[in-house]
Amino acid sequence: MSERKEFRDLASPEAAREAIADLDLVPATESVPLAEARGRVLAERLDADLDVPGFDRASMDGYAVRARDTFGADETDPNPLELTGVVHAGEEPDTEVSEDEAVEISTGAVMPPGADAVVMVERTREQGDTVLVQTALAPGDHVMTAGADIAAGERALGPGTKLTPREIGLLSALGVDSVPVRGKPKVGIVSTGDELVRPGEQLNSDAGQIYDVNSYTIASAVAEAGGNAEMYPHAGDDYDEMESILRQAADECDLVLSSGSTSASAVDVIYQVIEDRGELLLHGVSVKPGKPMLVGRLENSAYVGLPGYPVSALTIFRTFVAPAIRRAAGVPEPTSATIEAKMAAEERYSEGRTRMLPVGLVENATGELLAYTVDKGSGATTSLVEADGVVEVHADTSYIADGESVEVELFSADVRAPTVLGVGEDDPAFARLLDELERPRYLGVGSREGLRRLRDGVPDFAVASAGDRDVDADELGTFEREWGLVVPAGNPDELSSLADLVETDVRFVNRSTDSGLRTTLSNALADLAEERDTTRHELVEAIDGFEMATKAHESPARRVAAGKADAGVGLRATAEKLELGFVSLGTEQVQVLANSERTEKTGVQELETVLESKLDAVLADLPGYNR
Amino acid sequence: MSERKEFRDLASPEAAREAIADLDLVPATESVPLAEARGRVLAERLDADLDVPGFDRASMDGYAVRARDTFGADETDPNPLELTGVVHAGEEPDTEVSEDEAVEISTGAVMPPGADAVVMVERTREQGDTVLVQTALAPGDHVMTAGADIAAGERALGPGTKLTPREIGLLSALGVDSVPVRGKPKVGIVSTGDELVRPGEQLNSDAGQIYDVNSYTIASAVAEAGGNAEMYPHAGDDYDEMESILRQAADECDLVLSSGSTSASAVDVIYQVIEDRGELLLHGVSVKPGKPMLVGRLENSAYVGLPGYPVSALTIFRTFVAPAIRRAAGVPEPTSATIEAKMAAEERYSEGRTRMLPVGLVENATGELLAYTVDKGSGATTSLVEADGVVEVHADTSYIADGESVEVELFSADVRAPTVLGVGEDDPAFARLLDELERPRYLGVGSREGLRRLRDGVPDFAVASAGDRDVDADELGTFEREWGLVVPAGNPDELSSLADLVETDVRFVNRSTDSGLRTTLSNALADLAEERDTTRHELVEAIDGFEMATKAHESPARRVAAGKADAGVGLRATAEKLELGFVSLGTEQVQVLANSERTEKTGVQELETVLESKLDAVLADLPGYNR
Repeated sequence: MSERKEFRDLASPEAAREAIADLDLVPATESVPLAEARGRVLAERLDADLDVPGFDRASMDGYAVRARDTFGADETDPNPLELTGVVHAGEEPDTEVSEDEAVEISTGAVMPPGADAVVMVERTREQGDTVLVQTALAPGDHVMTAGADIAAGERALGPGTKLTPREIGLLSALGVDSVPVRGKPKVGIVSTGDELVRPGEQLNSDAGQIYDVNSYTIASAVAEAGGNAEMYPHAGDDYDEMESILRQAADECDLVLSSGSTSASAVDVIYQVIEDRGELLLHGVSVKPGKPMLVGRLENSAYVGLPGYPVSALTIFRTFVAPAIRRAAGVPEPTSATIEAKMAAEERYSEGRTRMLPVGLVENATGELLAYTVDKGSGATTSLVEADGVVEVHADTSYIADGESVEVELFSADVRAPTVLGVGEDDPAFARLLDELERPRYLGVGSREGLRRLRDGVPDFAVASAGDRDVDADELGTFEREWGLVVPAGNPDELSSLADLVETDVRFVNRSTDSGLRTTLSNALADLAEERDTTRHELVEAIDGFEMATKAHESPARRVAAGKADAGVGLRATAEKLELGFVSLGTEQVQVLANSERTEKTGVQELETVLESKLDAVLADLPGYNR
Repeated sequence: MSERKEFRDLASPEAAREAIADLDLVPATESVPLAEARGRVLAERLDADLDVPGFDRASMDGYAVRARDTFGADETDPNPLELTGVVHAGEEPDTEVSEDEAVEISTGAVMPPGADAVVMVERTREQGDTVLVQTALAPGDHVMTAGADIAAGERALGPGTKLTPREIGLLSALGVDSVPVRGKPKVGIVSTGDELVRPGEQLNSDAGQIYDVNSYTIASAVAEAGGNAEMYPHAGDDYDEMESILRQAADECDLVLSSGSTSASAVDVIYQVIEDRGELLLHGVSVKPGKPMLVGRLENSAYVGLPGYPVSALTIFRTFVAPAIRRAAGVPEPTSATIEAKMAAEERYSEGRTRMLPVGLVENATGELLAYTVDKGSGATTSLVEADGVVEVHADTSYIADGESVEVELFSADVRAPTVLGVGEDDPAFARLLDELERPRYLGVGSREGLRRLRDGVPDFAVASAGDRDVDADELGTFEREWGLVVPAGNPDELSSLADLVETDVRFVNRSTDSGLRTTLSNALADLAEERDTTRHELVEAIDGFEMATKAHESPARRVAAGKADAGVGLRATAEKLELGFVSLGTEQVQVLANSERTEKTGVQELETVLESKLDAVLADLPGYNR
């Protein structure tokens, strides 16, 4: 490791906020066409430059008259006025209204000289060239005087006003087609690390390559905060390349964010470039996640280094960087997105750092929100979408009790708890059924773990196959799936039974122990062992790769397809989808089980409806599935 | 008027909603690059197509080992392993780990074959080619297995998912660079009416032209709802031109909206085109505003005709059209933006139609929200920005009591009551001072009306000059402004006093009776009358144009500048700004008066602070102003 300047203590979150607030990000004011002004923030006060309307304007269809000529008129005793002309909207009047005269006028038309009121057409009768006015008018009746809406010189909109369709309406009325708005701070995003590949490019997993998650995530979060994100070419761990990209970004942007790599060498290189070409103001903040955050200046730009793991990077961005971008862009802080929830399980802490705990939300039977922690380990990108917000746990809190009330900072104000939360077996038919629900959340944790969580009372339902049913639950639906051995196309090893798997020398791939499919396989092996008067253990030992546990329902089949194994436990549906061979070993039942306290919950009832109305169609579409 | 098909009864709001819901607006699915996917809605379920990570991955810097080789190790009795290589992130391992061997490994690197755990560097010591392992490991320790985050075949995101930075993170991890999203319905906007001119173009007010407010307002509201707005060339009232533009729009769009004109002839022409080229499904809805709404089909497109007045057009759009666009775009309905408020004054109705009442909001002393109606008459565009939302009053409600609780549908979820609400004199110094406050609202209704409203208790403060002080209020600040006659540059009529105005034959322009400046002028005339032993009335009669009441502080001066008058009441600051002549007639005091029940309100205190700290600087910048 290269030598780093010593920052003995991690900075407090407040110090980090201040360090970023002190960086000058404010971009210059710019002008945008009215058609592109929505969502922008007005840079300066706008006074009206003209009267709206620009003339005394009829606000009814009728006749322009002198009010005094109508005094005393009513239905029984109308005043006759001589009709001397007509004026439509968008025309300059060519007639003056003199005593006892009237001019026909349309809504929106200019009041002709001499007239000071409009009589509605409904209150008149026309008789040849004479208009009989059946009502008395006061001067100004049904006339909008020039400037009555807004007059030249009046304050129209103040600086800092966010432009919605309503403000755009007022700007239109004032004829403004170029709007002075706060500039969007330009934020350069430099992704680092030899192992990163941009989405869309070819990935070499054998060489440890992974897709670059942070660049697009942070770029869209920058846009959400009101900045203009600019992605720079990906930099590896080479000093010269990194230096050249960072300097270019610093030259072109108000703020440079580096992000992407978790590798120490890439971080070291960045660190060195900032030290050489700028100034490091802060290194590390006492927040979990976020320890590796850097704050500094790089030439004339501000610089923040984000942690490498996606959840950490986004959390740190949201907590520390987004407010600074919003401030620079003049975008108001979003309306509070903080809600109360009850912790679904106790949590213990020991680290003495502020902790930003990602949580998912679920509504319980009484409509209360429960918050459960989403912690799939560092680097998991699925945590991004499986959490709804963050609970900030103070450094001196070491324990949160089950049921304790916590404040959840939602990822945005429009985040809502899913309509229904399910857990359990990863099954392709059920995955399709979920498409019929609005905003469900399903965590494919396997049958065993799913049932465990259902027993703990957090989810609304669980999906389990072949599992232990020791749980108080209501069955919402059930179906069967055909399972067996997925083998290469043409079944080159000519496997035909479970016995063949035990007896021949094939490389096998299994599922993880949480999977219901693995339990079903184990049960079948136990039956075979009983038949043969031996132990299941002995049969398992004879299978090469029985302990090779893979995560999802297609994983063994995909290993077979990749030539990394000769057979894997799997479904007929998977074998057919991937155009592989299949040795059927039976069917197993999959059950959808509702949390018995939540059967009245709308989302659960919708699931039940969908199971009743759509399951047959879904199953008919997948080989090996049956009711 | 052309003949219209008979629609005897106005449709109910529900019928209008249904008619629009039945129009088919749903656009085709499209693919967008990942960088542009934020805010879009996923069109279909996305299953993972690869394992993330794609390989067994070290999650710590350390050494890749066989766990069994560490069994029994601790700090006092470390196990020595032979260091046989190194693997960095982004490299393919070139070494296998055999018994009692270790390979140095970086976070994120591929586990070398044979190894099944990583020992953290902190738990080891290196001695030449030997690594001393000081802890026992279980298989899998500090290793993220292939697919542990998400495995190929697993359901990643469901159809209808709105793509935020978090979903974009997951899509990045899966290498997806082209995202199937719901298309945005294309909405054509046809503005009509001979009198309309696009902002930025030259306006001829004498010919009754006004700027087209609805086109940009509705276009930005379409974009807000998730549609793609397309503005078509402006059409006048000519049938052939209108028909050709409407047919082009219908050909290119999923929905055509016509909007803009309030003139009956333009509406008649549209009506005729729809009748000839499409089908009218609904004409008129029993909502105020909104009676003139049309719903139909135009060739292969859906068609909705919006009312002409901007507030009506936007209200009808928001109520009936926006939900249909959101549904077509797959955009979820925004989180409820409904709040409770108390009516600030009683309201009576007699029309028997559902009424969408625009209201402004203000927080009272106890933090309750008051809603006051914003009704500046049909066609006022300032109502757009002076209201915060709408109260829907049912057709059979004829009375809402002062203090009655109402539901306010905010214009959007992030609308908040202004920090402080002021009313009163339109003054250029105070207008600048307002720039120093965050989200104030100020209604320039004049001193007299401002004081009346302050007495009624709705606003937080009033600004009044020369007015009647019969109100229980706390003075927050005060300043003086120099007033007099604004005359053409060079003062061609050689006016030098108020007496000259009475005695010479100049065309004068006054302010409206609510204006404090007018009261000051009247008071000065009363003094002059007393001096001359005559009546004020007599002097006023001698001034040509004394009753010519204009709206805002610059209005008389602008009439002078336009050559439409020889003198106007006004401020020295205005005369100098507009480079006109000025005849000083004295100074008048302007007072900022707080609602005595709201002096503790944050916004009022901020106003007081700004008056203390910024008033001098503002006054120094404007000629004729003093403390």
